[in-house]
Amino acid sequence: MGRWEPNARGRLEQAAMELYTERGFEQTTVAEIAKRAGLTERTFFRHFADKREVLFWGSRTLQQHFVDAVAGAPDSAAPIDAIAGAIEAGAALLQERRDYARQRHAIIAANAELRERELIKLSWLSAALADALRRRGVTEPAADLAAEAGIAVFRIAFERWISTSAQSDFPQLIRESLEELKAVTAGR
Amino acid sequence: MGRWEPNARGRLEQAAMELYTERGFEQTTVAEIAKRAGLTERTFFRHFADKREVLFWGSRTLQQHFVDAVAGAPDSAAPIDAIAGAIEAGAALLQERRDYARQRHAIIAANAELRERELIKLSWLSAALADALRRRGVTEPAADLAAEAGIAVFRIAFERWISTSAQSDFPQLIRESLEELKAVTAGR
Repeated sequence: MGRWEPNARGRLEQAAMELYTERGFEQTTVAEIAKRAGLTERTFFRHFADKREVLFWGSRTLQQHFVDAVAGAPDSAAPIDAIAGAIEAGAALLQERRDYARQRHAIIAANAELRERELIKLSWLSAALADALRRRGVTEPAADLAAEAGIAVFRIAFERWISTSAQSDFPQLIRESLEELKAVTAGR
Repeated sequence: MGRWEPNARGRLEQAAMELYTERGFEQTTVAEIAKRAGLTERTFFRHFADKREVLFWGSRTLQQHFVDAVAGAPDSAAPIDAIAGAIEAGAALLQERRDYARQRHAIIAANAELRERELIKLSWLSAALADALRRRGVTEPAADLAAEAGIAVFRIAFERWISTSAQSDFPQLIRESLEELKAVTAGR
């Protein structure tokens, strides 16, 4: 049994992000992450399945936020409004972690395997949103289309959020991007 | 020098699709594909970089159709109409190959690596559509949003096309799905 280590998970995450940024994801080993965090490899593996999971564990939390928000939308909400509420709630969750989000985005952009993983996670988020809509009685193809539109808006607003000033408001960018999507699909 | 083999590429593709369907993509070797086609491995590698490329070489052609159609849309066309024309042109290209498209879809659905590859190819198609819109002077985020909307419509109409009756009209399903997307984003 390892002794209790205060905030081991947070220390491991920070050490991993530093190393991925300094020398690249591929070139970093779990041993190095544990060493930088002042912990053992065994402790690392109690918190993360592998070094990739350090970057992707948060998507489960995001997915749960999305799904809960869709389920909790008023009965009268149109599918796109339920989705808008969900992706705004997801954006609010991330708002305080912009530095982390920027750093993570740069790490992922630099590695093909990670870019692929991110695409897969986004497709799962879309599938989860569509499932949540179907549980509200939304039929196909409306459920799939609304979910895909929501993920597209989320992704595009995210890229604007991390590339513009530090004061930018991610939920506000979600609302603006959704308005832009409405204008685009209306043929304007 | 290998001797000239009539329709070697088509024979290799057919043999590969049969084997992927019968025993799975993972379990099929290039040697087996070549043997079933009555050709050599060397001939296989003159036509395809690897056994995965048999399933994905067509996406380059599809991408070229998409990009040419966006470039060729009337100057007055709104971004979403340029995209609609492009994905309808892509659907028309595939219309005569429904049996192939169904078989390919089933092979990909059965293998995680192939599903990931398909997601990546779709993201490249979306990026190519967005680029083509930018070359028409469409600004961000409208170019990205219209391209993502187009790929979502294409993917969803594709799944309806291969899962409904053999007589179904893929370009018509594209038009219907786009109308559904317009209704969804309008909050109906």
